[in-house]
Amino acid sequence: MTAMPPAAINLKDKLARFGEHWSPRVIAEMNDYQFKLVKIQGEFVWHAHADTDEVFIVIDGEMAIEFRDGVVPLKAGELCVVGRGVEHRPVATGECSVMLVEPRGVINTGEAGGAYTAPNDVWV
Amino acid sequence: MTAMPPAAINLKDKLARFGEHWSPRVIAEMNDYQFKLVKIQGEFVWHAHADTDEVFIVIDGEMAIEFRDGVVPLKAGELCVVGRGVEHRPVATGECSVMLVEPRGVINTGEAGGAYTAPNDVWV
Repeated sequence: MTAMPPAAINLKDKLARFGEHWSPRVIAEMNDYQFKLVKIQGEFVWHAHADTDEVFIVIDGEMAIEFRDGVVPLKAGELCVVGRGVEHRPVATGECSVMLVEPRGVINTGEAGGAYTAPNDVWV
Repeated sequence: MTAMPPAAINLKDKLARFGEHWSPRVIAEMNDYQFKLVKIQGEFVWHAHADTDEVFIVIDGEMAIEFRDGVVPLKAGELCVVGRGVEHRPVATGECSVMLVEPRGVINTGEAGGAYTAPNDVWV
């Protein structure tokens, strides 16, 4: 194997390459997991992921994750683990950039579907 | 189930709670994966993880990952995926704070062992 060292992946450089909201872009894979960047603004749909936990890491800005039993505000430098099967709704007043960590194949709207459902496995 | 919303985990707050170098502290779990914070300075041991990829996300400062075929410099806001079985050695001139993402149970020195081998599954 002629190996090459892996790339350094700069989050801000990757974020500068797209503007669309609620449309996650894959930036890296680890085993069968993906790291995705997403820009969000406004209110997403209530949804859950039946088969997996999901991690939100806020890179820039502020957001909140609404749960049926409370709200978790998050700002840059904070992360939150949404448990499998737990209904949640991401919201952001201003634009917020987030890194998601979850298994390959997870759909952004879970089982809810609808207009916010984004193409999966789009790399940036 | 009386669910409670999950916690917001602040990386800088967690980093302020320990000073030891080369001793990863778990801050979150997602499925069978862990998010760990580690402070590093100096030169680690060459090692590999035979069974898993490993992700380095630099939170504060600068570091490099040496590979047998090159060096990847990394600064805050950058990440790097080390492939399974790939020999590598993290190094940092000044203190650098890093978030690691890898399966539960991964030992920091892989199969190399030695003095830098840290207790596993220590939370902060």
